[in-house]
Amino acid sequence: MTSFMNEDFLLTNDTARQLYHNVAKYQPIVDYHCHLNPQEIYQDVQFANITQLWLGGDHYKWRILRSNGVDEYYITGTAPDREKFQKFAETLPRCIGNPMYHWCHLELKNFFGYEGTLNAQTAQEVWDLCNAKLATPEFSARNLIRRSNVTMVGTTDDPCSDLKWHKLLAQTDFETKVCPSFRPDPALNCHKAGFADYIAKLSEASGIPIQCAADVAKALTQRIEYFHSCGCCASDHGLDYVMYRMGTDAEIEDVFRKAMAGAALTTEETEIYQTYLLLHCGRDYARLGWVMQLHFSCFRNPNSRMFSQLGADTGFDCIAVTNSSAALHRLMDAWDSTNQLPKTILYSLNPADDQWLDTLLGAYQGTEVPGKIQHGSAWWFNDNRTGMVNQMTSLANLGILGNFIGMLTDSRSFLSYARHEYFRRILCNLIGTWVENGEYPADMDTLGDLVADISCRNAMRYFNL
Amino acid sequence: MTSFMNEDFLLTNDTARQLYHNVAKYQPIVDYHCHLNPQEIYQDVQFANITQLWLGGDHYKWRILRSNGVDEYYITGTAPDREKFQKFAETLPRCIGNPMYHWCHLELKNFFGYEGTLNAQTAQEVWDLCNAKLATPEFSARNLIRRSNVTMVGTTDDPCSDLKWHKLLAQTDFETKVCPSFRPDPALNCHKAGFADYIAKLSEASGIPIQCAADVAKALTQRIEYFHSCGCCASDHGLDYVMYRMGTDAEIEDVFRKAMAGAALTTEETEIYQTYLLLHCGRDYARLGWVMQLHFSCFRNPNSRMFSQLGADTGFDCIAVTNSSAALHRLMDAWDSTNQLPKTILYSLNPADDQWLDTLLGAYQGTEVPGKIQHGSAWWFNDNRTGMVNQMTSLANLGILGNFIGMLTDSRSFLSYARHEYFRRILCNLIGTWVENGEYPADMDTLGDLVADISCRNAMRYFNL
Amino acid sequence: MTSFMNEDFLLTNDTARQLYHNVAKYQPIVDYHCHLNPQEIYQDVQFANITQLWLGGDHYKWRILRSNGVDEYYITGTAPDREKFQKFAETLPRCIGNPMYHWCHLELKNFFGYEGTLNAQTAQEVWDLCNAKLATPEFSARNLIRRSNVTMVGTTDDPCSDLKWHKLLAQTDFETKVCPSFRPDPALNCHKAGFADYIAKLSEASGIPIQCAADVAKALTQRIEYFHSCGCCASDHGLDYVMYRMGTDAEIEDVFRKAMAGAALTTEETEIYQTYLLLHCGRDYARLGWVMQLHFSCFRNPNSRMFSQLGADTGFDCIAVTNSSAALHRLMDAWDSTNQLPKTILYSLNPADDQWLDTLLGAYQGTEVPGKIQHGSAWWFNDNRTGMVNQMTSLANLGILGNFIGMLTDSRSFLSYARHEYFRRILCNLIGTWVENGEYPADMDTLGDLVADISCRNAMRYFNL
Repeated sequence: MTSFMNEDFLLTNDTARQLYHNVAKYQPIVDYHCHLNPQEIYQDVQFANITQLWLGGDHYKWRILRSNGVDEYYITGTAPDREKFQKFAETLPRCIGNPMYHWCHLELKNFFGYEGTLNAQTAQEVWDLCNAKLATPEFSARNLIRRSNVTMVGTTDDPCSDLKWHKLLAQTDFETKVCPSFRPDPALNCHKAGFADYIAKLSEASGIPIQCAADVAKALTQRIEYFHSCGCCASDHGLDYVMYRMGTDAEIEDVFRKAMAGAALTTEETEIYQTYLLLHCGRDYARLGWVMQLHFSCFRNPNSRMFSQLGADTGFDCIAVTNSSAALHRLMDAWDSTNQLPKTILYSLNPADDQWLDTLLGAYQGTEVPGKIQHGSAWWFNDNRTGMVNQMTSLANLGILGNFIGMLTDSRSFLSYARHEYFRRILCNLIGTWVENGEYPADMDTLGDLVADISCRNAMRYFNL
Repeated sequence: MTSFMNEDFLLTNDTARQLYHNVAKYQPIVDYHCHLNPQEIYQDVQFANITQLWLGGDHYKWRILRSNGVDEYYITGTAPDREKFQKFAETLPRCIGNPMYHWCHLELKNFFGYEGTLNAQTAQEVWDLCNAKLATPEFSARNLIRRSNVTMVGTTDDPCSDLKWHKLLAQTDFETKVCPSFRPDPALNCHKAGFADYIAKLSEASGIPIQCAADVAKALTQRIEYFHSCGCCASDHGLDYVMYRMGTDAEIEDVFRKAMAGAALTTEETEIYQTYLLLHCGRDYARLGWVMQLHFSCFRNPNSRMFSQLGADTGFDCIAVTNSSAALHRLMDAWDSTNQLPKTILYSLNPADDQWLDTLLGAYQGTEVPGKIQHGSAWWFNDNRTGMVNQMTSLANLGILGNFIGMLTDSRSFLSYARHEYFRRILCNLIGTWVENGEYPADMDTLGDLVADISCRNAMRYFNL
Repeated sequence: MTSFMNEDFLLTNDTARQLYHNVAKYQPIVDYHCHLNPQEIYQDVQFANITQLWLGGDHYKWRILRSNGVDEYYITGTAPDREKFQKFAETLPRCIGNPMYHWCHLELKNFFGYEGTLNAQTAQEVWDLCNAKLATPEFSARNLIRRSNVTMVGTTDDPCSDLKWHKLLAQTDFETKVCPSFRPDPALNCHKAGFADYIAKLSEASGIPIQCAADVAKALTQRIEYFHSCGCCASDHGLDYVMYRMGTDAEIEDVFRKAMAGAALTTEETEIYQTYLLLHCGRDYARLGWVMQLHFSCFRNPNSRMFSQLGADTGFDCIAVTNSSAALHRLMDAWDSTNQLPKTILYSLNPADDQWLDTLLGAYQGTEVPGKIQHGSAWWFNDNRTGMVNQMTSLANLGILGNFIGMLTDSRSFLSYARHEYFRRILCNLIGTWVENGEYPADMDTLGDLVADISCRNAMRYFNL
């Protein structure tokens, strides 16, 4: 038996252990997609206590607490931080097999040096230990990033942002590159509340009067070029599902007018407008050499009672089952047919999509970079050992695992870099197991290269770092 | 090598063996959903021979025989029982990897003390051994239940039932609690033959004249309250797929009138009526603290030739692929939005639904009990090691495995309690493997609690036993 | 650690090793579905070099090269063969975990006696070694088949073919039976370009003037009977998805007329015509005792730019997500309801379909042969260890693995018989692991029978060889 989360955690054979301890753990981190707040990095914030850091905005943990029957008072309510922490400590031991159990204990070990387990009995001890450390300068936002050996952080930003904090950060001596990512969802979501207001904001940010859908496209191009001048090299689209519905110019403009007037749109109308702008943005990304990220199959805000109380991103979103396969093919083909397909990373929240997605990659590859079209690392609800092993096994079976750009945190927390360790252990174990079974030669140089590539070098090449 | 189905069957490591042999195997069984006949329990029936007991009504076995090319004469036909048994004995060794192989041998071992394997050569020996034992009082229905250490049995009952046998059973000294479950499918299936007749029967059973859909709702409420007075605390809905289509009162009543007149209904019409009654019943269940079970994604009676010969539940039903995700969200949200969502167990017959289902749970949890919304144990075609491991792994990744209410047999047989042993071995091995790999502390007290909880204590808490 | 692809490759336990080395490897190969060219077999062709043999027409390898960012010049372009081989040799080591890595090394070892690994450094050595051997008579098409111990090869043939090469082959002393298979897709694809031309060709081949859809049916029957007289006992349908839409005779003839006139057809129209002919052909197959193969859920030619350059079957096809479950039930039921359901092998390209498909089998079995309705071996993108283990595990759980007719290559290459070895190693390891874990008795006679049956004897029985 291996003792709990010791140095060989998740490494079940010698080859895996060698690959992790000799190669993977020394690789820098390229966290090309996350939700860190650049202002907090610039201001180098500190956290009042472990509840603020862990439970302040982490909807993964809120969801777990609700699944344990805990009252909202202790989750997003006004309970004292110490009581909230106690509820979480009581819940965690029930979460056997959940990645949260591993993430928390990796964070406690890596950042706070705590080697025990968190539960109702040890909560006070952990509370005291963590809070004492959080009060020291070593636990500022930047120092948490520094000690994780992070080369690059890719934040997620609104097209209307002036990227003030990114610019200020660029003037500091902070060693980690903090790049914005362009996420234009509000400009595409013509069917959602607040669309007209957002268009007004976009007009102001871009300096382009917006009278029609073509003007939205122009304004987005202006913002893309502005972002580009600020070091941005990636975009991100959060789609409920992938759509492809071509409209005439007149149809597109009709939809825009209706949307601006606040009229209800049919699904077809919404899709016509969204397809138009998706195609437009993709062509800009291709022109500038950016990476396009498409996230899909998420069902957001299903619980209307809690949505009205707490708003979005509060731990209620779910995996959606969508018909995205055919539409994604048409989108990719539309870009590719005019040689305007950008480097693309595709993420589906539904793990049943892994295999068709991995075959889709192979239909649109290009010579710009090996692995131009990528299947993104196991996302959100799949960000666990099962999801990672399935995503990498499917990719290995149907494409080239050696060209995979690997892990990202997608996180709002400064401690989440521990998930890169989690990923790398799982990667090394997967590859190591194949080698031990005679499925790949035990050539440690080649294997080390593959592991370093997937851990970070492929991402550096892909993002031109 | 482990010898065939010895005491460490399915237990591949020390922690697993300790958890099973020291904890799991001593837990009583809460078989909260099955199809046993309460009359047979009350009358404490005996079985003429092993064919009657095993092949009399078990469509799992019929299906296996057909897959081996066996003629219907030996399955549901008039072949002598001994010949039917021979065909089954010849078929079983071909079923390597099928849970039937394990269930049969567990039953032969646990109930009849037979340690060999069943095949064409041993059929006579097994036939003689089993039949001799079946003739003794130790093999009556109640004694088979008794020796399996069963605390509670949840049968499946028609709303029109007077629950006579449950009442009579309650007056005996039989130690196992036999509770009815409320299964109102015929009242909801307005599109199926026999609807008007069933409504007449429901009117008579409830004493409520039924002129309209609202009267059906009233009659169902009357039956729910009657069932409640007889100790019922659970319902069960067998849905082909999950629907959600709100209609006006006028639309609902139109559909009801058409259905009563025997007119053909559109899918939309059927869904309007069914949604109305599902919502109504769910609110009653919530009011009374019942558990609601929703089963879906089953395609029933696909083979019309055999359906006309043998009728329903004869081994032809299949996994269906349905669009149930969005509708199930809307249903759950409708109940939740008025705080009328009952404790709910969700079962899909399609294992591709595991992951989205496990995220859906997390969107509607409550404080009534930890794990208010449950993903039911791997159902029917998934009731095998693969299905169980996948269901529990998915639940562990996306929710809290420690709050899972665990196994049920869903069976028509008095021997099927062996499946609880099968489940517990798989559970202990899953958890034990995690511990051996350093993924959870080797704290045997906490682990023992988790195993006892999932084996039976969570179900006792959930059903207020 | 097991050294790279040694004799115990993929065999992780003693039982698996015994089953493979004592039984599986000695079984002849029944390759009942492939795309070998019968003319090349008759003419006993030789290959100029390893690039011609390996990269000449293998779209699996082309896809891999594209995924590594290799320019089309080195794939389907005019680069010298040696340079193309170099690109492939450079790409292969990146493909860790891909079955291509194993297939290539198995072929190098089994056919060329090369024990090393192929990479950029060893490319010249492998090039020289292979080409020297390819120049010898031992490496002619027939000798490659002979040394693989192949009993039967099932090619894939156009209904209009005169089967000249099959007839000529039958007159030789070539030991391997080379049977045609009937693939009438062009006659059913009324919505695709070239339909009218194909119908003219079919009319000529059959000698039946074709004025209407009923004449198409007659002509197909004529060709089926001709194929039958030439030893054909199997058909193959490549469907994008499974459809079932019954039309009246008048509707069917309307669709045919529109199609012949080159008019655009609606999906519904196409389905009416296709359903009519599928049902017709199936009844003919049943009458003659043929095996019907249905392949579905493939999305062909998604990349329009590359399709216009290279045409079909060039490495761009993908897994499709289709609604085939309900329609497939209706088709099977339509045949079965008149006792005209032929022996049928079902293949879906989407592995998410495994489970519902395995339950569907069980609803339509018959007494003609054990396992009348088969789930085909893991197809195309699933033809790897993951896909095979999942397909066989699902089949074992839901049906009878012991009746499985096993592997086929579906290949255009004379070296692909190595994939039967790959399959058998995986089969033996799956079964061996169950036995080692105490899930099946270690009765080596019964196990050896099961392995020999699945490796070849079931297929021989199924195809009446």
